[in-house]
Amino acid sequence: MAQSRGYRVIAEFSIHPIGEGTSLSRYIRRALAELEEAKGLRLQVTPMATVIESEKLSDILSAVERAHESLFRMGARRVDFVLRVDDRRDKERRMEDKVKAVT
Amino acid sequence: MAQSRGYRVIAEFSIHPIGEGTSLSRYIRRALAELEEAKGLRLQVTPMATVIESEKLSDILSAVERAHESLFRMGARRVDFVLRVDDRRDKERRMEDKVKAVT
Amino acid sequence: MAQSRGYRVIAEFSIHPIGEGTSLSRYIRRALAELEEAKGLRLQVTPMATVIESEKLSDILSAVERAHESLFRMGARRVDFVLRVDDRRDKERRMEDKVKAVT
Amino acid sequence: MAQSRGYRVIAEFSIHPIGEGTSLSRYIRRALAELEEAKGLRLQVTPMATVIESEKLSDILSAVERAHESLFRMGARRVDFVLRVDDRRDKERRMEDKVKAVT
Repeated sequence: MAQSRGYRVIAEFSIHPIGEGTSLSRYIRRALAELEEAKGLRLQVTPMATVIESEKLSDILSAVERAHESLFRMGARRVDFVLRVDDRRDKERRMEDKVKAVT
Repeated sequence: MAQSRGYRVIAEFSIHPIGEGTSLSRYIRRALAELEEAKGLRLQVTPMATVIESEKLSDILSAVERAHESLFRMGARRVDFVLRVDDRRDKERRMEDKVKAVT
Repeated sequence: MAQSRGYRVIAEFSIHPIGEGTSLSRYIRRALAELEEAKGLRLQVTPMATVIESEKLSDILSAVERAHESLFRMGARRVDFVLRVDDRRDKERRMEDKVKAVT
Repeated sequence: MAQSRGYRVIAEFSIHPIGEGTSLSRYIRRALAELEEAKGLRLQVTPMATVIESEKLSDILSAVERAHESLFRMGARRVDFVLRVDDRRDKERRMEDKVKAVT
């Protein structure tokens, strides 16, 4: 499942436990720590999600899975996440390019 | 449908036409222009979406609807969007606070 | 913001309170009741969301806002939702057509 | 990354190529065929997505990755997807249970 060299997958990940109170920041910090430990990912935290850039979708999916499991290890009983992926292979671009193109 | 004073709704909006080529930036710029014209919204463009902060959800929904319609006026035949809303009323916060709490 | 006659917007709505326990069904039932009261919407409940079909996006947005507010009236302190909209104006179709086309 | 026996992850997957016309059904059929080939997944097609139930999140992620790659093999140049995951481990349930609980 190799991808063409140079192309980057850009994704967005938002995760939260359900039923562990309204303040989720300690859970989000843990999920972020898991993403940061993953190799080959560039990250940008936004107010609603974390943007992830990678050469390989599989690296994003592995990191997301680890982040997800880490919330259960913290005691969460129910965890929801949304992952949106934008994978463009006709043009090389990085996450900054997407913002520059529209602002 | 009034909301308590001081509380801010934080949302994220991602829109694109389907079937109008792989380069979408001119459509995204138009959608952003519509959001910027709306009163009372604070905006932050990210690589995957636009974060919107407002005192009223209804102002976000109106702006989103205008942005959506603007793509059809540009000639798009099919338009998809994703709107994620996070509305917390036990604590005042702005979009920057969400990032600070986790980084 | 009138749309061409005959074209239907098809959307998907998922809502939940955060911090009110892991069992959300009474909240979802209330949100569904609000959607059902709205005129002109066709609904289909799935395991992950409610699919909504309407002639007008504005009717969907109004119903979504009412559903959202209803959860705060039940006592929720933080409510998140995801609304995905697919609006195609080159071809008339209803929600069943989308399933038939791919199965 | 083993999960407790009996608990099922319920997810929702929506994928489409961007820039390959407004009619996407042949792409969606291919993506569905990839999901159907994966072992251990239960599927339900809705007008806006495919609901996936599995004992393991990793099986869902692998199938989603294969579906994603299959669209590039068909010639798509840009592919976007949204994956929403709901993983509850305090109560056994299947996809039908979620619908029954709210209707």
